[in-house]
Amino acid sequence: MAKRNLETCFSPALYEADRHSGSVVVIIDILRATSAICTAFANGASSIIPVETVEEAKEYKNQGYLVAAERDGYVLDFADFGNSPFNFTREKVEGKTIVYSTTNGTTIIKMASSAGKIVTGSFLNISALTEWIISQESDVVLFCAGWKNRFNLEDTICAGAVAEKLMATSLYSTICDSTHAAMDLWSLAKNDLQGYIEKTAQRSRLRDKGLDDCIEFCLTADFTKKIPVIKNGILVDNIL
Amino acid sequence: MAKRNLETCFSPALYEADRHSGSVVVIIDILRATSAICTAFANGASSIIPVETVEEAKEYKNQGYLVAAERDGYVLDFADFGNSPFNFTREKVEGKTIVYSTTNGTTIIKMASSAGKIVTGSFLNISALTEWIISQESDVVLFCAGWKNRFNLEDTICAGAVAEKLMATSLYSTICDSTHAAMDLWSLAKNDLQGYIEKTAQRSRLRDKGLDDCIEFCLTADFTKKIPVIKNGILVDNIL
Repeated sequence: MAKRNLETCFSPALYEADRHSGSVVVIIDILRATSAICTAFANGASSIIPVETVEEAKEYKNQGYLVAAERDGYVLDFADFGNSPFNFTREKVEGKTIVYSTTNGTTIIKMASSAGKIVTGSFLNISALTEWIISQESDVVLFCAGWKNRFNLEDTICAGAVAEKLMATSLYSTICDSTHAAMDLWSLAKNDLQGYIEKTAQRSRLRDKGLDDCIEFCLTADFTKKIPVIKNGILVDNIL
Repeated sequence: MAKRNLETCFSPALYEADRHSGSVVVIIDILRATSAICTAFANGASSIIPVETVEEAKEYKNQGYLVAAERDGYVLDFADFGNSPFNFTREKVEGKTIVYSTTNGTTIIKMASSAGKIVTGSFLNISALTEWIISQESDVVLFCAGWKNRFNLEDTICAGAVAEKLMATSLYSTICDSTHAAMDLWSLAKNDLQGYIEKTAQRSRLRDKGLDDCIEFCLTADFTKKIPVIKNGILVDNIL
């Protein structure tokens, strides 16, 4: 049986939408968008509407929606809260639809919209995510959000962790140098994730802004079994 | 004293020309363009004119120039030879000006043309290259050619090797995740370079085309002390 193809994309600037229309696309933006999305569903959110622009987010706010919106880590003034997973508490999100706009993560959700199946991943849901990917019997692209089109290490090591699990099944093959690099970097990082993350640019940015309290949490494996997938442009829990 | 900034760029699609106009830009395309360029100067070539398009290369050929030109590894029919360093023998190139056009390498030389200083690097000239970079007292960008805009491992580990040497001087600092990744991948590769390169996509491409005879040579450190720099759009040996 032909093996399924596994690729990794390190930045929106490197994404080749035409080649991935039949694939499962896994969006990875662990500090902090996809970690926050996983947390929201774990705490009972019913759906999340990803929006790209500040204007769209503001319009939804005017219509009475609960809005999470940030740029460069800072909560936008009209928003109910920002991008930290700790904002998405059960008290705030249970049973609610949340409108969500972030610096990098929501843009690549839109970019991936031509793909067959889009799912959001993080360490928080990594085992459930991997099982779901395997169940789809499709080629896979691990799509790292990066930071303003640049490569970043934190999304890469998460992609490497997912790739390692997928390759261990023998169902996948890869001739993608980015996937090999991600797995190799994961092999260096996995025994001390927090220590490894110390050198990343995003670690410095979050520290400088006092937004780094959630990093340890974002590196926690299997906090939830939720699998947030995109259906008709909206994030819903696949299990529902 | 303020440290010099060190960055790495994994693909032409990620290059930010505006930010690097005052930097030394190091072009790295080890399989095979920059290895061939280093070999040509080691064997006495007087200059190399990089051209982007097949049409330009053909025009130079009609004017009587010696032309090295390939696409996807294959020698173009009108060219004198292709992209293997083994083509650039002393018999062929000594005292000559060579017109050179390749799939990835010559394009990024043009892209980097707004930078302060442009140099081509490979394992073949790595120590001399690093000494020269240090002597320039500028910020540095290690610009990997990649393959058709994609990340590749072989250029990345060479960038990591250069970065390791530069960082060891304490003259440089980096907050660039790509540089950290390149150094980490180099740390995994350096004890068995040929073994590490086995998994790269370019290794497979060259093997499939019977063009892989030069790989061991391209991974050889310090075959030459030549430092091919761009002056007025033309590659010349900096030592001359």
